[in-house]
Amino acid sequence: MFELTHRDGTARRGKLMTPHGVVETPVFMPVGTQGTVKAMTARDLEEVGASIILGNTYHLYLRPGDDLIARRGGLHRFMGWSRPLLTDSGGYQVFSLAARRTLGEDGVRFRSHLDGSAYELTPEKAVDIQAQLGSDIAMVLDECPGLPATEEMLRSSVELTARWASRCRTRLLELREGGVASVTHINKGQVQFGIVQGGTSSNLRQLSAERTLAVGFEGYAIGGLSVGESPEEMYRTVESTAPLLPEKQPRYLMGVGTPVDLVECVARGIDMFDCVMPTRNARNGQLFTSQGILNIKNARFAEDDSPVDPECGCYSCRHFSRAYLRHLFVAGEITASALNTLHNLYFYLDTMKGIRDAIAFGTFEKFRQSLHRTFSRRSLNP
Amino acid sequence: MFELTHRDGTARRGKLMTPHGVVETPVFMPVGTQGTVKAMTARDLEEVGASIILGNTYHLYLRPGDDLIARRGGLHRFMGWSRPLLTDSGGYQVFSLAARRTLGEDGVRFRSHLDGSAYELTPEKAVDIQAQLGSDIAMVLDECPGLPATEEMLRSSVELTARWASRCRTRLLELREGGVASVTHINKGQVQFGIVQGGTSSNLRQLSAERTLAVGFEGYAIGGLSVGESPEEMYRTVESTAPLLPEKQPRYLMGVGTPVDLVECVARGIDMFDCVMPTRNARNGQLFTSQGILNIKNARFAEDDSPVDPECGCYSCRHFSRAYLRHLFVAGEITASALNTLHNLYFYLDTMKGIRDAIAFGTFEKFRQSLHRTFSRRSLNP
Repeated sequence: MFELTHRDGTARRGKLMTPHGVVETPVFMPVGTQGTVKAMTARDLEEVGASIILGNTYHLYLRPGDDLIARRGGLHRFMGWSRPLLTDSGGYQVFSLAARRTLGEDGVRFRSHLDGSAYELTPEKAVDIQAQLGSDIAMVLDECPGLPATEEMLRSSVELTARWASRCRTRLLELREGGVASVTHINKGQVQFGIVQGGTSSNLRQLSAERTLAVGFEGYAIGGLSVGESPEEMYRTVESTAPLLPEKQPRYLMGVGTPVDLVECVARGIDMFDCVMPTRNARNGQLFTSQGILNIKNARFAEDDSPVDPECGCYSCRHFSRAYLRHLFVAGEITASALNTLHNLYFYLDTMKGIRDAIAFGTFEKFRQSLHRTFSRRSLNP
Repeated sequence: MFELTHRDGTARRGKLMTPHGVVETPVFMPVGTQGTVKAMTARDLEEVGASIILGNTYHLYLRPGDDLIARRGGLHRFMGWSRPLLTDSGGYQVFSLAARRTLGEDGVRFRSHLDGSAYELTPEKAVDIQAQLGSDIAMVLDECPGLPATEEMLRSSVELTARWASRCRTRLLELREGGVASVTHINKGQVQFGIVQGGTSSNLRQLSAERTLAVGFEGYAIGGLSVGESPEEMYRTVESTAPLLPEKQPRYLMGVGTPVDLVECVARGIDMFDCVMPTRNARNGQLFTSQGILNIKNARFAEDDSPVDPECGCYSCRHFSRAYLRHLFVAGEITASALNTLHNLYFYLDTMKGIRDAIAFGTFEKFRQSLHRTFSRRSLNP
């Protein structure tokens, strides 16, 4: 399902084959939390070049529910998205959003952040929900401790995550054999990725990688980063963990990150990324450009007739000025969220395209340095 | 600037020539209050077939200001809209939104609903602002009394509106002769419509029409309706007022209305309409369909896989189910506002196209009866 086509140093370019089409890697996956990428329609996403998006299992499980989505034919059909979809396991949101969590060997009991009602997420349940959503790539349930955490907490988390990984795999194999009557297995070609935890400890990362690889998955993710550690610690951890993962399988760094994070982690052998940053920051008026970061609400843009990014080919930049986008933002118009999100996603996806091309042409290091210059330069809004 | 091409009874079909293109009438103008139709981009509006939109002078005057917009080259260029634009005079919003209004012969002093700062709107100022916005059609400043109002209040309002109309016309003629150094006259082809007031009194409407016609404008509007009176009173007032207006000039009924209002007032000789109903109701989940009104938040749609309107050709109806749109609405997603607004505007503009075609084919009465059956039938959500 994964083919490496080019290498440039440790950076890799490849193709990920899924039931809903091929994804060129390295790839950035926009986050569609509640069955839509916020402020976007499916055709907006296609236009900006999204080849795969992420759905949040926790949110969809609570509302509208995986049973309802399965009855609609799965998440692709429900949301009108015909390209590949990855779903997370719900674990991260249970640990970050839900109220009154109780963690046990069997799973985690929690109350919905929406209405306080009680739920339980077990490894098997996380697999079942994702089977009913019908994503192309499903993630195992992992425990996600915040950082900093003690060595003992991290080790115990790694061990629990490994036991859960094994249960998740067993459950998926049962589903594949058609053995669970209560679960609608929407997407028979769905694959499953394991998740390596262990904080910033290279020993624990090694332990977690060994345990996770011993179970065996179609791909592997590095989880538990971008949760409070410094970028340097994050890069160091990725640098030591990525080589522990199978060369010929896709590597997914969860929840990362800034444009610089993306290029730095591609440099360390990562193939897949997701992050709310381009979409959330767009709604807050922070725009990523070829000249650095631009805060559109800044008064200096009130009479600026140039586009947000003169080098950008997105609909927003080809049709509207900074002055207009600032006005829409200040006036609180929904259209501001749409135009800003369109731009930021275009920038992120265009950056990934630039990375892929650079890897193919053997100019990745040059691309990386250039991106660093863009984002270390004094921002447009110091 | 206006050519009548077909008649069917009292209903008229025509073409309105403007510096930004031809508008086929009868026409519905989506409302773009703050320099955008809420939740829409310019290309969305083009796609749903908007041939002319309305900008609110009051809002744009307060934020970002007509001077700023004039320096950007006018409202068309500022908002990236290349088709015709009509601006209202700001009067209606001053009377409905502003705080601490003081009405005098010279104009109205008020405080901004945004920050309480003091402004004055005079007839001349209303003309100047619209000249700086550069709309294709500008409206005179009128006084807009709420209904019910006493005969005396209405008569005094009619007299004041007539004196203001004369001052507005004089000012525009000065601008056309290039005589006002402080005002940037963006759109030399801008025309001006007078407004007939008089509540539901046919005597006062007649008086107001005579006074307004005596000034002389490129078109005439009926104002002061849809402000609390019954539909029957509104239809009766339109029926008695429209024939008082020049046969060969466009007639604009301000702030109206429901689909049934549109067809009933076309039947009485109206050519132009604007209303926030399709856009505002969309954001509240109320959708207009060929089967009546549908409230998308209704639980009955939770598992409904059919489109909002099986007969509709809009992007929302061609790609998404009621179940999905209900989910997006319940989840509070911005995308719900966008998809719902797209649908309602498409429905309104498609209805107007149906009206125009029916007038051309001599089947308007049939179209009118059919629309009545649609909207008098038990709604989908009784």
